[in-house]
Amino acid sequence: MSIITLLTDFGVNDPFVGVLHAVLHRECPSARVIDVTHAIPPQAVASAGFWLARVQPWFPAGTVHLAVVDPGVGTNRQAVVAEVDGHVYVGPHNGLFDSLFARASEVRLHLIDPTVPLASNTFHARDLFAPIAGRLASGALTPNQVGPCLPRPPNAPITQRRAGAGKVLWIDRFGNLITDIEEHELAAPCQGQVMVGGRAIQLGRTYADVAVGSLVALFGGFGTLEIAVRDGSAHQHLSLGVGTPVRVVSSVGR
Amino acid sequence: MSIITLLTDFGVNDPFVGVLHAVLHRECPSARVIDVTHAIPPQAVASAGFWLARVQPWFPAGTVHLAVVDPGVGTNRQAVVAEVDGHVYVGPHNGLFDSLFARASEVRLHLIDPTVPLASNTFHARDLFAPIAGRLASGALTPNQVGPCLPRPPNAPITQRRAGAGKVLWIDRFGNLITDIEEHELAAPCQGQVMVGGRAIQLGRTYADVAVGSLVALFGGFGTLEIAVRDGSAHQHLSLGVGTPVRVVSSVGR
Amino acid sequence: MSIITLLTDFGVNDPFVGVLHAVLHRECPSARVIDVTHAIPPQAVASAGFWLARVQPWFPAGTVHLAVVDPGVGTNRQAVVAEVDGHVYVGPHNGLFDSLFARASEVRLHLIDPTVPLASNTFHARDLFAPIAGRLASGALTPNQVGPCLPRPPNAPITQRRAGAGKVLWIDRFGNLITDIEEHELAAPCQGQVMVGGRAIQLGRTYADVAVGSLVALFGGFGTLEIAVRDGSAHQHLSLGVGTPVRVVSSVGR
Repeated sequence: MSIITLLTDFGVNDPFVGVLHAVLHRECPSARVIDVTHAIPPQAVASAGFWLARVQPWFPAGTVHLAVVDPGVGTNRQAVVAEVDGHVYVGPHNGLFDSLFARASEVRLHLIDPTVPLASNTFHARDLFAPIAGRLASGALTPNQVGPCLPRPPNAPITQRRAGAGKVLWIDRFGNLITDIEEHELAAPCQGQVMVGGRAIQLGRTYADVAVGSLVALFGGFGTLEIAVRDGSAHQHLSLGVGTPVRVVSSVGR
Repeated sequence: MSIITLLTDFGVNDPFVGVLHAVLHRECPSARVIDVTHAIPPQAVASAGFWLARVQPWFPAGTVHLAVVDPGVGTNRQAVVAEVDGHVYVGPHNGLFDSLFARASEVRLHLIDPTVPLASNTFHARDLFAPIAGRLASGALTPNQVGPCLPRPPNAPITQRRAGAGKVLWIDRFGNLITDIEEHELAAPCQGQVMVGGRAIQLGRTYADVAVGSLVALFGGFGTLEIAVRDGSAHQHLSLGVGTPVRVVSSVGR
Repeated sequence: MSIITLLTDFGVNDPFVGVLHAVLHRECPSARVIDVTHAIPPQAVASAGFWLARVQPWFPAGTVHLAVVDPGVGTNRQAVVAEVDGHVYVGPHNGLFDSLFARASEVRLHLIDPTVPLASNTFHARDLFAPIAGRLASGALTPNQVGPCLPRPPNAPITQRRAGAGKVLWIDRFGNLITDIEEHELAAPCQGQVMVGGRAIQLGRTYADVAVGSLVALFGGFGTLEIAVRDGSAHQHLSLGVGTPVRVVSSVGR
């Protein structure tokens, strides 16, 4: 049984995701379709890319990932199928997959034929990408049959920044500020302090390491640094949002 | 494998939808249950009807659609199973299916027995409609066995309005104002302007036809006119909501 | 085919729930996974417990319920598998299951080994609980194999309060104020008045028993008293929230 994941900026209030499920079921009735998230902020390609890379390890090789954050829908932007370390991605070629490509061993890109007539100019997730994702999952289509190969794009600047210096990329349901700073960037990930918004926050292991209502920084469930308030919201407490710079310093007073 | 769709005004925060899934699984373990939307505004029968008609083409004949927007739950309002062009609908007979009936070739209505004792007076989706939907999907029940036939209701006024004149029916996640004006109403759907809230907006093909932050009108993924702001929200930009009149005029200055 | 339910405070905007589905699918591909709710307010153990008890009757014996509201994640709080009247619960031992235990005939508690190394200190739903839930559903693991038995905890005070006197525990999508007062507490559940926020509200049978915009109290779909406004929101109308005391009196003026 194959898995198809969905990651979009469609939200769950409109019937858009339900119709994607209908198309995927039509093309591959036996697939298990898993909604990763539909709450990517509208047009936020970078946020989508962050989570695509972060959730990949939790899905088996062979998974087909349908990812659509597509402000250029209906224009001549390219659409691709990307084979990335045994996973298959389907979506627009607009930077959405750059985080994946940057950390992948093997990337093979296939251009989707832009001349196929479609039922709409604004819903390519349903009319272009979901039919291809479903056929890839069912085996009715292989990546090589999709279209000509494209060159692997150069790595995005994400890999060139200074170790321990990053920014807030996502605010989760608990108000935790999730950054792009990875544990392996630090020599001693359990020590030191985190500088954010003019404050120094102690590094800890889990939320309950500090008193209720206090700030703590820790490496969260997807391996990146996050700033939290125990049983509260760091987002509300600090009034900081996505894009805020964050820096880890190795000890107090340095 | 049969498909059961769900469309309600229940939201997804309460455990109501999860319990519907439990009942459907009990009655038809092999069915694929697809949530179309649960974000119909409370009691908004007309919005629900709009989407029921719009999503129908994306599901195969034989699909069982469980649709519940039911302000009269527990009263003597009628409950029905409706066969509409090969699809089967289950829900209250309160206008919810009028948009479907208005455009259907074949409609057969069956009255659900109102005397069956139920576990609640307020959750007929779970106690009345889901068991019937599940049995229709499994084949344990046929529409004819549900109850006596009712006459097809007269068409709603939706079909009698002037071509190209409609209103905003839905605001989607992107702030697009989705109307009930259909492409086939217009002689030249790619030309002309859209009048809304005292403004004239150019008709286009897709969102990126205009500059970032600019207004555009286009025919969206479900075939009706929508008003959008590229990479922004027409809803916020225009401060217009559901019910706003919209009119297409064939050329500037007319 | 086994059922696994999910009830958490994770929301549906983050990719957390999608990754839980991935882990459950890995451990038990044939299971039907049903999301009961992910909208428990952060850390609201009591709200979660209320719904766990309320939805249980709608799932068959043998269902595995994964429930995670876990403010002490990563500390030495205990983690358990609980067998409750034929259902199996997996989650933290922090009071989450107290409502279930209080009304159960049979409870058997098994301590999950706290020394197993985990991939994170903050996402035990994914790293600890979901793998166990999946293996329990597949039959690869039995509750007895999980770990040593713990004593059944003493009943929570919920069962000792005065009949007909309770509080608001949940506000649903319609703005209905759902309480913990059960129908069987009252000698005559269809008569009398409900006192809340200094008002007396007539008991009714369903929402449409009163005029549009009027208040009504009734026993809702899960058997507890709720306060509603017909086609409106009691929450907005009364400006009352979770925790508000509610009392049923048997007749006017008493």
